Amino acid sequence: MSKNLTSRTEDYSKWYNELVVKADLAENSAVRGCMVIKPYGYAIWEKMQAELDRMFKETGHQNAYFPLFVPKSLFEAEEKNAEGFAKECAVVTHYRLQNDPDKEGKLRVDPEAKLEEELVVRPTSEAIIWNTYKGWIQSYRDLPILINQWANVVRWEMRTRLFLRTAEFLWQEGHTAHATESEALAEAELMNNVYAEFAEKFMAIPVIKGIKSESERFAGAVETFCIEALMQDGKALQAGTSHFLGQNFAKAFDVKFTNNEGKLDYVWATSWGVSTRLMGALIMTHSDDKGLVLPPNLAPFQVVIVPIYKNEEQLTAITDKAQGIISRLKELGISCKFDGRTTHRPGAKFAQHELQGVPLRIAIGPKDLENNTVELARRDTLSKEFVAMEDLVAKIKGLLKTIQDELFDKALTFRDSHITEVDDFETFKKVLETKTGFISAHWDGSAETEQKIKELTKATIRCIPMDAKEEAGTCVYSGKPSSRRVLFAKAY
Amino acid sequence: MSKNLTSRTEDYSKWYNELVVKADLAENSAVRGCMVIKPYGYAIWEKMQAELDRMFKETGHQNAYFPLFVPKSLFEAEEKNAEGFAKECAVVTHYRLQNDPDKEGKLRVDPEAKLEEELVVRPTSEAIIWNTYKGWIQSYRDLPILINQWANVVRWEMRTRLFLRTAEFLWQEGHTAHATESEALAEAELMNNVYAEFAEKFMAIPVIKGIKSESERFAGAVETFCIEALMQDGKALQAGTSHFLGQNFAKAFDVKFTNNEGKLDYVWATSWGVSTRLMGALIMTHSDDKGLVLPPNLAPFQVVIVPIYKNEEQLTAITDKAQGIISRLKELGISCKFDGRTTHRPGAKFAQHELQGVPLRIAIGPKDLENNTVELARRDTLSKEFVAMEDLVAKIKGLLKTIQDELFDKALTFRDSHITEVDDFETFKKVLETKTGFISAHWDGSAETEQKIKELTKATIRCIPMDAKEEAGTCVYSGKPSSRRVLFAKAY
Repeated sequence: MSKNLTSRTEDYSKWYNELVVKADLAENSAVRGCMVIKPYGYAIWEKMQAELDRMFKETGHQNAYFPLFVPKSLFEAEEKNAEGFAKECAVVTHYRLQNDPDKEGKLRVDPEAKLEEELVVRPTSEAIIWNTYKGWIQSYRDLPILINQWANVVRWEMRTRLFLRTAEFLWQEGHTAHATESEALAEAELMNNVYAEFAEKFMAIPVIKGIKSESERFAGAVETFCIEALMQDGKALQAGTSHFLGQNFAKAFDVKFTNNEGKLDYVWATSWGVSTRLMGALIMTHSDDKGLVLPPNLAPFQVVIVPIYKNEEQLTAITDKAQGIISRLKELGISCKFDGRTTHRPGAKFAQHELQGVPLRIAIGPKDLENNTVELARRDTLSKEFVAMEDLVAKIKGLLKTIQDELFDKALTFRDSHITEVDDFETFKKVLETKTGFISAHWDGSAETEQKIKELTKATIRCIPMDAKEEAGTCVYSGKPSSRRVLFAKAY
Repeated sequence: MSKNLTSRTEDYSKWYNELVVKADLAENSAVRGCMVIKPYGYAIWEKMQAELDRMFKETGHQNAYFPLFVPKSLFEAEEKNAEGFAKECAVVTHYRLQNDPDKEGKLRVDPEAKLEEELVVRPTSEAIIWNTYKGWIQSYRDLPILINQWANVVRWEMRTRLFLRTAEFLWQEGHTAHATESEALAEAELMNNVYAEFAEKFMAIPVIKGIKSESERFAGAVETFCIEALMQDGKALQAGTSHFLGQNFAKAFDVKFTNNEGKLDYVWATSWGVSTRLMGALIMTHSDDKGLVLPPNLAPFQVVIVPIYKNEEQLTAITDKAQGIISRLKELGISCKFDGRTTHRPGAKFAQHELQGVPLRIAIGPKDLENNTVELARRDTLSKEFVAMEDLVAKIKGLLKTIQDELFDKALTFRDSHITEVDDFETFKKVLETKTGFISAHWDGSAETEQKIKELTKATIRCIPMDAKEEAGTCVYSGKPSSRRVLFAKAY
């Protein structure tokens, strides 16, 4: 366990990369741009999955599974979607290997086994799913269809970073079909709200709900709702998106239904997704120079007990005590691990659990046995105190709630202090470089201005916030009239 | 909802294919050999996953995730494994599409975007995982590694059938690394026992635990443990396998560790998996000519309530009553759905729930409101009875247990009556064609005899049962000496 984690001020990007690897969350694999998610990282992802899955089911959705491959002819059917993803598609062209006649013990692609039609490894599943829905929908009685899929997808990105941008990533993608435009729009907004609630209540990450500008919209969508978070380095991160797809995919795949007036119409659609990218958001929102800081809701184990002993007898007595604590915590649904490894000293264990962000650490030594106390340490504040055994369980229960709340509050304070209203372009550029964070500014609504600002500053429009007030103003770049402010930021 | 399900005696294979589709479990997709798992089928798979995942974690395993793609050079490293899977590999050769200059609005593979090294879509993950483990293991202190992965895999099968054999399927694959041979062997057998327990207690499918003959072994394994089930048509189905891999993969990927005596040695390995094929086993073990029969443990909902009414007032009263039943069942952890659809008549609902195998059906009509009773129907026996409201919840709780047990007993009786001891080859062939099922016969242990028997009868050695007694005899085909009986059968 190395102590040499680069500090955030020294090099934020390096700090992130090192932390992901040293905290045993993930690592790069032998496959370009693809990561291995290690057990500790995957355990966090499983907790996210479980909560999201519960929320999806509570809002009436069911899970299903659609093929990994999309035949090229289906992939290209919805033109904008195809155009948006064509440049990052992994393509299967052959279905067999054979012994290489030139190289003993090596294999080569069998040239005889070429597919008649190439298969795209799904970068997203609208095409294969809407081609399937065509067979499921005849009448309004077949609607709505409210389906979610947990799956891997592949987007051949040129520059990748663990969790934030990988060629293969894990995600969920909801795909719903509706009889009316208003119902589909309401669904898209509902699921964006579900994502926001999940991010804030479960991940302790404050987010801004908004809609994307046209150029930042999902390829094939009519409207993209999103949640935007702010990382500690002042860069924004899109944490989830929910798309109102209009009738675009229904038209591309000819999915019509008889409505309740007996007339034929195209079906209305949404899709929405969050991915293992959320792991990156989690890490960059809460962690510090000593390592990961995990909100108790997402910690693989919420409490760890480290015994401090000089002989077997002491260890036995401490272990006994620890087992009692663990079973009482378990009754309250609190997960606690006893770190009884004899191969590591307490100091090394402390450092590891700090690095891995375990919310609470209990140390029990011989003195504690005598006094009937333990030492309880908080990972987020690094504060320590001695707690009497009889108060311990109640104390832990309260602290876990406190930590969850305070992590959110801290992130919210940071975020809110990094939204700056700006009305001229010189200040815009200065704030972006010095203060960083979101800039709330007027925009004339044109893609040209958006593009120009991006070229000049690397800032993009993160969203038009759902709660943006009507306010007459002039565009921060063009000086043209504008009716409300939007949020700009540099982004991951 | 069609009533025209082909009967099992008429055409078992057709019955199966129709049932999978009509019960809304799965359907074929636009991608050759790949299926869409529909929400009702996926809900059953989720129940299997949850229980297996619980069992894996209880036996000390953690989940992780490894890349979908395996670079060809890694894939070919373990020669037997590579040879075993080379003929069914989907291969990614390119990473980009572009507009087709010859066809307006169409895409083609960008010839400039050819990968330097082809990527195999994982047919199984030993290669990519052992290449990763190499970086994780230095000393015996790093062992054991006990990891499981839930994932999709692709094997380009020429003849596919929903759930039983599909080009893409969902599975879990455990991959463990150990310091000693005996520990790895014990792990492989332990996980085969976990599969057996899961199949019997949870799926109500009796299985025979055994080891595979050399020619039926997993490519790259030293020993393959398996569980074998018997379907209603007398054909066997391999329901799960657990492999002792020896040091084969450690040698292929050069994974050495310092043992507790300070000496370098290769690491010992296991891998084990079950897949969506279990859905096929489930369907073919319990279902009947009216449709699916589900063990209560796996039913997406265990009880359904159908209201029978002539007017709104009756429907309201029945709905009230139903809600009361549902909430009392929920307290006991029993899932119950109210089928209040106004678009379908009770008869159609009955047929659908029969087809979909809901274990218990409650019908409530106006007479029942008067008498304070309900009609309760069992899906497995198709028996019906009137039950007083005050007895209902206890009755349901008891019946769900009874159904789970009786389904297992029924399958066990069928299975046990279809294991036939045979001592000459004429009888062997006759039993195989007329009575079907497992044939317990002596075998001389040679691959030649095994192959010959397969050619002549299509029967393969399903396993050498773990509990096979030492018994002197002569091979049913060659007449050579044999020390114990093995199980032959035609198989899925």
